[in-house]
Amino acid sequence: MESELEAGPKEIPDIVVGRLPIYLRALQRMLEEGRRLTSSQELGERLGISAAQIRKDLSQFGEFGKQGTGYSIEFLADQILQILKVNRVWDMVVVGAGDIGSAIARYQGFANRGFKVTMLFDNDPQKVGQVIGPFTVQDATELEESIRQAEIIIAMVATPSADAQGVADRLVSAGVKAILNYAPISLNVPEDVHVQYIDPVIHLQRMTYYL
Amino acid sequence: MESELEAGPKEIPDIVVGRLPIYLRALQRMLEEGRRLTSSQELGERLGISAAQIRKDLSQFGEFGKQGTGYSIEFLADQILQILKVNRVWDMVVVGAGDIGSAIARYQGFANRGFKVTMLFDNDPQKVGQVIGPFTVQDATELEESIRQAEIIIAMVATPSADAQGVADRLVSAGVKAILNYAPISLNVPEDVHVQYIDPVIHLQRMTYYL
Repeated sequence: MESELEAGPKEIPDIVVGRLPIYLRALQRMLEEGRRLTSSQELGERLGISAAQIRKDLSQFGEFGKQGTGYSIEFLADQILQILKVNRVWDMVVVGAGDIGSAIARYQGFANRGFKVTMLFDNDPQKVGQVIGPFTVQDATELEESIRQAEIIIAMVATPSADAQGVADRLVSAGVKAILNYAPISLNVPEDVHVQYIDPVIHLQRMTYYL
Repeated sequence: MESELEAGPKEIPDIVVGRLPIYLRALQRMLEEGRRLTSSQELGERLGISAAQIRKDLSQFGEFGKQGTGYSIEFLADQILQILKVNRVWDMVVVGAGDIGSAIARYQGFANRGFKVTMLFDNDPQKVGQVIGPFTVQDATELEESIRQAEIIIAMVATPSADAQGVADRLVSAGVKAILNYAPISLNVPEDVHVQYIDPVIHLQRMTYYL
């Protein structure tokens, strides 16, 4: 007799989850190129990941390919879209309308990949009311109310480091469950809130080690 | 008798190298806060990494702490600066003077972390000659010559996806050994060239899996 625990869904390692978006991006690019079939070998060569690793990662989620014929690109992309829950569009807010926040708000690369910026906030009275791309910068004092009303659960933080933790606390209290943080500082959030970081210096320092 | 291979420096896993910049950032923040000593426990709590993992990572490079008294923050930060080779300033070029390229060129966060943008290029005649922050946008046709002359080996690519591979090829031919790529596409480069990626959607999709 299986226990409820054993019958539950298998927990996938986060590092495997982290590779799925990279596979998806490559597959979507192949679709744009008019391609229909691919293999773990080809994907691996494009991405610098071994074919065996790709097959192992994908097998955690099901049987997507056929021995000999490889993967249908459209089917596999579709499956990964579902697994990552980006077969829909998630609304997002951006906090901080400086250079980086403005660049994010105007970024064209979210479209068709599951995301849409819908609000841009700043606490600087000089910036509030300004038009940046398709947005009018909103007063950060309205942050919690606007987020709750729109039921948004994804936010990007592009404030100075000194403000980032305070903003994160307010986002969490408004119900946000996923934060992409551009401020170069680690955030403390409750366990049920996910944080990812974008700090170019971290990536640069990782490369200089090898130079 | 040891073989030359065994006597050579121990190869550190890339995933460990990748955590060092995160430790360094936390240590530098503690220094700014006026702190002098820390422990693997405290670092672990700040970063959401286990204390055991931090001790194991650091022990790959040497003995940095004392049982009972913990780590001298300044000494440990200094050691990591040396290991990552950022106890100096690396000049960098940015290719692409759109929203993202401009934001990077103006970004204040490189100072004191080992990097400095020194040139900004674009291939759009409308942009060449424009002043963006402290830079005058240079014509991308001058890319190779300028990079070779200044002996720059680090570049950031912030072009449209369709241009990124071509730009990367030109950077490599000019001697660049490390590329931070903001275009949402995987780059093919020779084995001795390092590439890191900044694509916000990859991070967002990694979080939506859990929502």
